[in-house]
Amino acid sequence: MSRKLHLTAFLKPPGEYLAAWRHPEVDPGAGVDFESVLAFARTAEDAKFDAVFFADLVGVPLESQDVLSRVSVVNDSFEPTTLLAALAAGTSRIGLIATASTTYNEPYHLARTFASLDHLSAGRVGWNAVTSLNDGEALNFGRSAHVAHADRYARAEEFHDVVVGLWDSFADDAFRHDRDSGVYFDPDGLRSLRHKGEHFSVEGPLNIARPPQGRPVVVQAGASEAGRRFAARVAEVVFSGVRDLAAAREFYADIKARAAAFGRDPGSLKVLPALSVLTGETRTEAESKMDTLRTLMPPQVALAHLGYLLGGVDLTALPADGPLPDLPESNQSRTAQAEVYRRARARGATIRELAAEISADTGTVVGTPVEIADRMEEWFRTGAADGFTVIFPYLPGTLDDFTRLVVPELRRRGLFRTAYEGATLRDHLGLPRPERGTVP
Amino acid sequence: MSRKLHLTAFLKPPGEYLAAWRHPEVDPGAGVDFESVLAFARTAEDAKFDAVFFADLVGVPLESQDVLSRVSVVNDSFEPTTLLAALAAGTSRIGLIATASTTYNEPYHLARTFASLDHLSAGRVGWNAVTSLNDGEALNFGRSAHVAHADRYARAEEFHDVVVGLWDSFADDAFRHDRDSGVYFDPDGLRSLRHKGEHFSVEGPLNIARPPQGRPVVVQAGASEAGRRFAARVAEVVFSGVRDLAAAREFYADIKARAAAFGRDPGSLKVLPALSVLTGETRTEAESKMDTLRTLMPPQVALAHLGYLLGGVDLTALPADGPLPDLPESNQSRTAQAEVYRRARARGATIRELAAEISADTGTVVGTPVEIADRMEEWFRTGAADGFTVIFPYLPGTLDDFTRLVVPELRRRGLFRTAYEGATLRDHLGLPRPERGTVP
Repeated sequence: MSRKLHLTAFLKPPGEYLAAWRHPEVDPGAGVDFESVLAFARTAEDAKFDAVFFADLVGVPLESQDVLSRVSVVNDSFEPTTLLAALAAGTSRIGLIATASTTYNEPYHLARTFASLDHLSAGRVGWNAVTSLNDGEALNFGRSAHVAHADRYARAEEFHDVVVGLWDSFADDAFRHDRDSGVYFDPDGLRSLRHKGEHFSVEGPLNIARPPQGRPVVVQAGASEAGRRFAARVAEVVFSGVRDLAAAREFYADIKARAAAFGRDPGSLKVLPALSVLTGETRTEAESKMDTLRTLMPPQVALAHLGYLLGGVDLTALPADGPLPDLPESNQSRTAQAEVYRRARARGATIRELAAEISADTGTVVGTPVEIADRMEEWFRTGAADGFTVIFPYLPGTLDDFTRLVVPELRRRGLFRTAYEGATLRDHLGLPRPERGTVP
Repeated sequence: MSRKLHLTAFLKPPGEYLAAWRHPEVDPGAGVDFESVLAFARTAEDAKFDAVFFADLVGVPLESQDVLSRVSVVNDSFEPTTLLAALAAGTSRIGLIATASTTYNEPYHLARTFASLDHLSAGRVGWNAVTSLNDGEALNFGRSAHVAHADRYARAEEFHDVVVGLWDSFADDAFRHDRDSGVYFDPDGLRSLRHKGEHFSVEGPLNIARPPQGRPVVVQAGASEAGRRFAARVAEVVFSGVRDLAAAREFYADIKARAAAFGRDPGSLKVLPALSVLTGETRTEAESKMDTLRTLMPPQVALAHLGYLLGGVDLTALPADGPLPDLPESNQSRTAQAEVYRRARARGATIRELAAEISADTGTVVGTPVEIADRMEEWFRTGAADGFTVIFPYLPGTLDDFTRLVVPELRRRGLFRTAYEGATLRDHLGLPRPERGTVP
């Protein structure tokens, strides 16, 4: 069987583009309209995507209300684990991935929630482990600022190991249900975790049977040194925001080599770079759709987005027609910050120009189905990707176009499945079911 | 319109009775079988129950594995908020109540989860706030023993107030979705909580629109002085385990008077005592079903339950065929302990006999539909109940029997609805939709 692409649909209703809600074909309130989100998931399922994938923030960014009040998704969306449970009941085959923070949760709750979701969905769930990056989140959990970068990853590693250990509380065949002898489960099949570490002390066991997948699929997106190390050790799907082919190849080779150095089969870690797409029957049609979308962006939001990429800086205090000065290093995503400075210096742009340019340059790949499939195939065949985390600028339009136009083109090339071959998310992704008790 | 009973179905698949899973008509693994749980919820919905209601423990009790391995529900069941979300997608009218601890959660997560559930279910959700009572839970959250009683309630009160404040983050009409002006929400309709209290510091706002019910329904079950005060101040449904009519009237009058003393309309607080039921076409049939159930109890579990009532004593070390010796006084429940000694001495029973007798006395009301309806009507008409939290010893048998036999009898008496009149859980319960910003 030839190697196939893996595709996840990264859904942020009503769309990834911050002004997507203003699009005339979009339902602005789709973020909390279950029927809308279910329809998006069913479209992805009909197209045989490996999974739908939901991001998360446990708070709102510390932007001004003037900015916040002009965007949708950070203000008003479902909590992802409850959303996944409802989608589990409304879909039958597609995988379901939700983001949950290792910084603001307790591992016992998280292990239990995802084990419960895996049972509810008969083995279709994945956990995207994030360390969280926003001071607006810290303030909702009794802290005055975000936990420092290095501490977040140390906690995340221990958090992950506790979660995996809890999922392994019961042996797969522990539940005997033997009416005659009165043995509900075999005590030899239960092991309490008894974890005592630097960040957590968790006795266990988890009060639910081992998940159908053994363990829900672990997804990770760290790009920093600590993030790559964490991903290489434990992640089964790695999401990256890398946009250019050379960087994507470097990342792919690095993360696979690091996984091998941890004694893992590099094939058991799937690298799925982000791919924001907008297609149409013709190039002109696709570009015209992108131009329409760009006109919807309020300038206040463009400026704030730039400040966000720089680590939460209020740029309204600086002269908009001056250059971007050096700003303190951020505790947030250093990769994004470096990219902004690279652009600012290469072009000598003013802050206003930079904001407009960056908000216009969404990283979205705009083109015909053939052009998009060409790009995907090139990345797939030249060591840059095992598939893609497909991002949709507005919903359902760009998702409908992708499944209607690009997916058939990928199938013509033999690059994507025409039917689900297995039942679980691990089956879709070609990942092994973990043995109980193995420590990554 | 005459006053009607409110009924919630307290579901602990495969049944409340600890040995229910051994019953020949029961699916022992129903606790993690979604289709089974959905079928139970649909049975309750077809019968027009106000809500289904799920208990919770965030751990397993600290019993011996020999005992734990013979019971079902504490070992292997869905996490209730994910279960509720899935049930929201699979039902359309019935209310959905889940238990969540104020001791082991963060109020931001809890507020968000229940707000999300209320949106997913279009206003059908309730939160049963518990302070948790088990050392087996504490050990999963980095603590060596359970938080002391008084501290738990102080934290619970503050926790509740933070949750309610977060639900009120946005005005009901805040989300304008005005494409032309680019205003997604009206900033005047957003208020951050900025709570700084003894136990919590929570900035807010919650990142989701105000729930359809304004606030999910708050359920509480405290029986102690602190529990009653908490319930009287904030609860909208009060659950109690009181078994006899006189005590139920005392509790009902007390909690309503306390609510009035807080300036509340006593009608806005519904008292729904627990009622475990087992019925049949005839008294003989019902009693025979109960006898069958009793034979299923493993003696090890009966003995452990007796030890639990005596304050956590390991009775396996004592001769089972000897009398119960004097044991040190427990600080767990002195009332329960005294009752055990009264029985032991009145009957001159051996430990084995006492364990069997006490485990057989489940508090389940066994009788014909008319007898059960008589008892419910008496409690309802004489100031002991606004309805009941109906408990089912094994599922689906005792639920099917109740809906098939008792519900029609209640309807003949004009005591229970024949159709849902409203859309939300508040509608079913006759509770007002809370104004934003009002503090209980």
